[in-house]
Amino acid sequence: MMDFALRCATNIHWQALDVHREARALIKNQIPCCIWFTGLSASGKSTIANLLEKRLHAEGRHTYLLDGDNIRQGLNRDLGFTEADRVENIRRIAEVARLMVDAGLIVLVSFISPYRSERRMARGLFTDAEFIEVFVDTSLDECERRDPKGLYAKARRGELKNFTGIDSIYEPPEKAEVHLESGVESPEVCMERIIEKLSSLQVSV
Amino acid sequence: MMDFALRCATNIHWQALDVHREARALIKNQIPCCIWFTGLSASGKSTIANLLEKRLHAEGRHTYLLDGDNIRQGLNRDLGFTEADRVENIRRIAEVARLMVDAGLIVLVSFISPYRSERRMARGLFTDAEFIEVFVDTSLDECERRDPKGLYAKARRGELKNFTGIDSIYEPPEKAEVHLESGVESPEVCMERIIEKLSSLQVSV
Repeated sequence: MMDFALRCATNIHWQALDVHREARALIKNQIPCCIWFTGLSASGKSTIANLLEKRLHAEGRHTYLLDGDNIRQGLNRDLGFTEADRVENIRRIAEVARLMVDAGLIVLVSFISPYRSERRMARGLFTDAEFIEVFVDTSLDECERRDPKGLYAKARRGELKNFTGIDSIYEPPEKAEVHLESGVESPEVCMERIIEKLSSLQVSV
Repeated sequence: MMDFALRCATNIHWQALDVHREARALIKNQIPCCIWFTGLSASGKSTIANLLEKRLHAEGRHTYLLDGDNIRQGLNRDLGFTEADRVENIRRIAEVARLMVDAGLIVLVSFISPYRSERRMARGLFTDAEFIEVFVDTSLDECERRDPKGLYAKARRGELKNFTGIDSIYEPPEKAEVHLESGVESPEVCMERIIEKLSSLQVSV
């Protein structure tokens, strides 16, 4: 049996060689970051995020999209829609995004994330260069006109409580890195605007 | 302004082309999986997991290690060490590992994870081929002799409550994919045994 103290001494050497974020990013030839989409329900966040992910993937980038589909049924299925739960929802998503950026990925996050304070909290987990806030700025009127899942109609009838824009506030970003008018420009054009921003930040080509 | 109904129709096309796990794994030329280390405190889990991660990284694999260092201070900092909190701790870790495997990574998880039920829950989030349980089987006597952080001594003095092996149970796995005797074999040999298993599962070369 090896002496554990000896092995501990050996481990100090190994620890210094641990696989860290730069090593992972290098192997992937990309600069990891978190692209955070915020906006009202039906504003176009997920549509644009999906387009962006496909584009980045086609360029050989390694991405991951965190959205309601893979979070609400899994990690956050114990959370509801009260204000406290919504804050905890975003906190956990931000922490997972941080782990994934640490793992070397370009992480796209698509959640309403209505409160400035929670987006500030999320931003605080990253370096300045790593966090790119994308405000999908579509008017409430337009979102309500689209209403693909009938959620606004339900909220207006009082069947959905705490619905952002109806009986729960949305605080628009004051200085998002990218400001998209998805009611005016097509999702493809919006996606291109993000690509331009990423290029200027040297995240993508 | 584009008509939203038209854009929705377009989106159906796009959705079908979404970046899915096979596409991500392909770009990485690896088979994503979750390698789950379980064992007592000081059994050697993290030492072996670190060795394994460095080896996989050297082979060009894209890995990530989830352990106390990056989980307890972030995602799970709201959790303590009661039984309920420990179960929730493992549940969230398993969900994050699942997301990362979905993202195409080889994820190493290093937590005591003392309960069979929680490891079964974790396993249930993956396909059979994706989940590789590694039992780092070191006797309590040996772990207590090592006690690199003095935690066993503290627990014996009653200063640490719910400490696995002292006043909280550890349920050993009944059929882990890999069974390591870290008290008998060196960490390097233990790591090689995992590599052999991964090779036989065609996860790594």
